[in-house]
Amino acid sequence: MGQTLTEKVLDDHLVDGELETGEEIGIEIDQVLTQDTTGTMVWLQFEAMGLDEVQTEIAAQYCDHQTYQFDFKNTDDHRFLRSAAGKYGAYFSRPGNGICHNVHRENFAAPGKTLLGSDSHTPTPGGLGQLAIGAGGIDVTVAMGGAPYYIEMPEIVNVRLEGELPEWATAKDVILELLRRLSVKGGVGKILEYTGPGVESLTAPERMTITNMGTELGATSSIFPTDEQTEDYLERVGRGDEYVELQPDEDAEYDDEIVVDLSELEPLIAQPSMPDNVVPVREVAGQDVDQVIVGSCTNGGYEDILPAAKMLEDREVNPTTEMIVAPGSKQASEMLAREGWVAEMMAAGVNFSEATCGACIGIGHVPASDSVSLRTFNRNFEGRSGIEDDNVFLCSPEVAAAAAIKGEIVDPRDLADELGDLEDPGIELPDEYDGSKTDLITPDEAPDDELVKGPNIGDVPLRDELGSDIEGDALLKMEDNITTDHIIPATQDILMYRSNIEKLSEFTLSRVDDTFAERAKEADGGVLVAGENYGQGSSREHAAMCPMYLGIEAVLAQSFARIHRANLFNFGIVPLTIDEETYEDIDQGDEVEIVDDVYDAVTSGQEEFTVRVGDEEYTATLDASERERDILAAGGKLAWTKEQAEESGSGATPADD
Amino acid sequence: MGQTLTEKVLDDHLVDGELETGEEIGIEIDQVLTQDTTGTMVWLQFEAMGLDEVQTEIAAQYCDHQTYQFDFKNTDDHRFLRSAAGKYGAYFSRPGNGICHNVHRENFAAPGKTLLGSDSHTPTPGGLGQLAIGAGGIDVTVAMGGAPYYIEMPEIVNVRLEGELPEWATAKDVILELLRRLSVKGGVGKILEYTGPGVESLTAPERMTITNMGTELGATSSIFPTDEQTEDYLERVGRGDEYVELQPDEDAEYDDEIVVDLSELEPLIAQPSMPDNVVPVREVAGQDVDQVIVGSCTNGGYEDILPAAKMLEDREVNPTTEMIVAPGSKQASEMLAREGWVAEMMAAGVNFSEATCGACIGIGHVPASDSVSLRTFNRNFEGRSGIEDDNVFLCSPEVAAAAAIKGEIVDPRDLADELGDLEDPGIELPDEYDGSKTDLITPDEAPDDELVKGPNIGDVPLRDELGSDIEGDALLKMEDNITTDHIIPATQDILMYRSNIEKLSEFTLSRVDDTFAERAKEADGGVLVAGENYGQGSSREHAAMCPMYLGIEAVLAQSFARIHRANLFNFGIVPLTIDEETYEDIDQGDEVEIVDDVYDAVTSGQEEFTVRVGDEEYTATLDASERERDILAAGGKLAWTKEQAEESGSGATPADD
Repeated sequence: MGQTLTEKVLDDHLVDGELETGEEIGIEIDQVLTQDTTGTMVWLQFEAMGLDEVQTEIAAQYCDHQTYQFDFKNTDDHRFLRSAAGKYGAYFSRPGNGICHNVHRENFAAPGKTLLGSDSHTPTPGGLGQLAIGAGGIDVTVAMGGAPYYIEMPEIVNVRLEGELPEWATAKDVILELLRRLSVKGGVGKILEYTGPGVESLTAPERMTITNMGTELGATSSIFPTDEQTEDYLERVGRGDEYVELQPDEDAEYDDEIVVDLSELEPLIAQPSMPDNVVPVREVAGQDVDQVIVGSCTNGGYEDILPAAKMLEDREVNPTTEMIVAPGSKQASEMLAREGWVAEMMAAGVNFSEATCGACIGIGHVPASDSVSLRTFNRNFEGRSGIEDDNVFLCSPEVAAAAAIKGEIVDPRDLADELGDLEDPGIELPDEYDGSKTDLITPDEAPDDELVKGPNIGDVPLRDELGSDIEGDALLKMEDNITTDHIIPATQDILMYRSNIEKLSEFTLSRVDDTFAERAKEADGGVLVAGENYGQGSSREHAAMCPMYLGIEAVLAQSFARIHRANLFNFGIVPLTIDEETYEDIDQGDEVEIVDDVYDAVTSGQEEFTVRVGDEEYTATLDASERERDILAAGGKLAWTKEQAEESGSGATPADD
Repeated sequence: MGQTLTEKVLDDHLVDGELETGEEIGIEIDQVLTQDTTGTMVWLQFEAMGLDEVQTEIAAQYCDHQTYQFDFKNTDDHRFLRSAAGKYGAYFSRPGNGICHNVHRENFAAPGKTLLGSDSHTPTPGGLGQLAIGAGGIDVTVAMGGAPYYIEMPEIVNVRLEGELPEWATAKDVILELLRRLSVKGGVGKILEYTGPGVESLTAPERMTITNMGTELGATSSIFPTDEQTEDYLERVGRGDEYVELQPDEDAEYDDEIVVDLSELEPLIAQPSMPDNVVPVREVAGQDVDQVIVGSCTNGGYEDILPAAKMLEDREVNPTTEMIVAPGSKQASEMLAREGWVAEMMAAGVNFSEATCGACIGIGHVPASDSVSLRTFNRNFEGRSGIEDDNVFLCSPEVAAAAAIKGEIVDPRDLADELGDLEDPGIELPDEYDGSKTDLITPDEAPDDELVKGPNIGDVPLRDELGSDIEGDALLKMEDNITTDHIIPATQDILMYRSNIEKLSEFTLSRVDDTFAERAKEADGGVLVAGENYGQGSSREHAAMCPMYLGIEAVLAQSFARIHRANLFNFGIVPLTIDEETYEDIDQGDEVEIVDDVYDAVTSGQEEFTVRVGDEEYTATLDASERERDILAAGGKLAWTKEQAEESGSGATPADD
């Protein structure tokens, strides 16, 4: 039987297990990336494990979320990260150099390689045929130390693209269409592999818009085959020699297939406040727009901003609307500046920003109250923009630029009709991506060799070995689709404590219930209850680390998002799956007790646990590999990795299992 | 007897009083400007007075401090300001269009005109022969309503410039030299009038660097004569027809004279943490520099950034240093972008920011802890950068760029020797300042006609008519040179409450004593005690409004900074001057009582007040005009202006006295 493209790359990196859906496999990691809000913990854990030097082919530390440096804690984090990259041998991308995914794709992403990143949009270079997966920080730490990455073998879904995009429809509309069809849970446990005749019509940057936002489907990763488009892009970024042809076998078998006819797509938009709340732009046309932002790792490339710039040439941003352009990389900024497009955009009324993730996570350009913001980003979870009750829509740069011109939501086709002289700018790649590399400091050039820790950079929290009893109140009962933004908000006032868990934990789940953290501390132990898809969103391990710090021992949910589930294991919190009836029966405040001896049950491979709630008993399931059970038993991955290293007598280096 | 230039402009606008030093005069105001952190109160007061329409020739509302819009309250403020400008007939400069002083000088500043602005650096266009004065918001409100602006006739000091600047010395070094000689108190009660043969060697933008930072001397304003340089600049900004020749009479008499030989200047630097802590750069050379920022209203013009850009061409920012360039106006950004300089700077490793005041007041790019930051700004008061114990140096763009290249403080002359191929870039004006005006919305184009108030936009606080008794504890005793940053910090976490006095007042004097606000509230009345130069720094009237809101009835200080003193009158707080002995004798916590019937004493013109502290009695002086006494008696300027309007039967329009 032939192999899918995904299977080929996995096979090539397999060090443990077999490629059977649902089985745990261990794979070798070629490249890792971290960013500034997850990276501090990655390096603190690297230090805590006593590791000496990065073992992957490439490790890259980016500074992209907190580039505005609103607080000294941000700047201190950047200084610490530079010192850690220098000490341990990673590339360091200076604040302002751009978003990790954009800079990574420009400089390092390569077909057939594996990439693990402590950011949920790590799958971006799947558009180049790289198998790229987002993970919690400690998973990245361990991989960076040379150990394999373990994952349950996902289902491989064939997303067959047919036809070609019509005028004004874009790659963003492809992924919005998938979100519309599949929902934010539709990709959970899956890798989306794009195939079909429509693939060749998409340039590599367009493919990366799609793979980037595959994360919003809950997918483990998304990947495209490689072809002339891939090679062409790699040549333009000066790395043509890294091209490798990668195609699935003709007789590859997939777990599922979805067909998207590109020619039937039209401009789409995700309405507030979920990325899957997608409708044609025309359905919501006419709404006044207060703010438009073009940028982010989804649509912040040179090729994304250029169409918006062309649309704005000799036009003006409507006086009722503010338009901000925040490029995904300084390379994009520099090229757009060199070609005169930055000046054109400024002349049109654009506020041209530093290259940053910024506004996407509520850092800077927070919308006004009771206002509408159109963004080319990938997420519009409620409150993520930095204000509760926000109205954030997600769309392509073309739809965004059209709204900026008109001052209201408008299908660009209709605006083109109205204006008479507006043409679809299409997609255009530069002959050469020739921005400078000054801000990407190579390990050889690193100016630091010692760690520099500011006063906000704390210690890595640890949990003791798992005990026999889990008993405590259901401290919080939550609904479906609780995001990591709910668990640990990423707005600036909170984000700056990412390196300081004691302080950060005070904000745990504050967006659901602002008494939670205090109640949890007082209770000194307890459990969380949630509906479906608990922990969707970002890869931030703080969403497990902070509940751990507050004493949470187990989460009972109807289902878990993949990365967050792994993070729960990694920080010694038992993730138990419950059915809908059990979920309905547990009320907040109920006393919950796991009847089994928890340590024994976890380590012996027991799957069904008896949970007593008041006088009733229910069954909860622990679906975990032996390795995950060991991690849980040890009190988390850091403790487990150290144990492993000691047992294997290999000193501080994590063992290879 | 001949007139000074200042007297000529004043005479031309005089509506009340005589031009005798120390006498109160009323002058007509031609132009007003406000910015986003003082402007909301200006317009709320305009509304509270029931005024209909701006009466000055030009009123311009800029959005420059909070352009990063780090909180929805910032964005709400901007939306409110746009609506107020639209409703009342002011120009509106969109967030990102630049710093008020830069945009104003490009678009409106004109020789011989008067300008009142609710920002302490309003004197900037003095470099074009405009008489420009910073004032509290309510003074701007009243002037905007058509009433004259009252001020004590300042001393006129002749600053005679001789010679020409040598290589690598700049306009910034002229004002740093004056600060070195005169200190931050040296200009109090004075207008600095620049004369002499050295004037003609300075371009208008260079002059405006000097007049801008004259504020740091405590000067009421600074002004240059007009000449070919002025006309040349006005032509380049497309307003050559606004040129007026203005020179002092040959036999003009000045109150004082200072001579500066430009040819003797060298690169200077203000060390932490006062702008007058000035030494030659060579004295502090060799210190590692973590951060360099070029920008601000002092050195954020096209002509300021261009030299730094030239120095960075084909060079790189040191890997140990972060360099941020935040232009003073989008026009500057756009021109630099169009000419390729933005791309060059980016290639060199510069993080190119939006046009904003930002970092100068601790909003964005806050230095790391225990780090050194070199900035081309005008102020380095401790903590202003957003972190306590900061180490902020002030210098020219040339010195800043040299430090960015070298990674340490270096005299650019020495760096030039070291590098061999580094030349003084000198100053160069563009043939034409041809940036777009899209972001400057004229009153005719305004999209709003109703005020839009977000939930953080509160009411204007009012104080009752002055009573007979002032009695209470000395709630806080402070040292010399307390700045408005001490009284109401301007860092982002606090700044966002500028439109919400109830909330903002919680931060009053928190940088001196963080228990103060609570103690003041509990005490329900009391006084403040301070040394010399109380209230130096910005024009923010919040520094009077918040103490008023907390119940402070009087401030006893050895001396007051001019704008803050006016703000105290404007908000009904009695500013009493005490001598050093009295200052020494009062301890924090002492009960302080004004023995006189305060209302009677204030309204009858009494100058000396008896202050009882414990068993001792002291004399304190109220140096105030009749008008100021009336304002105090009424409980502040808003109440007084309304009274005046009612008495004159002119409806809501403030009377003309």
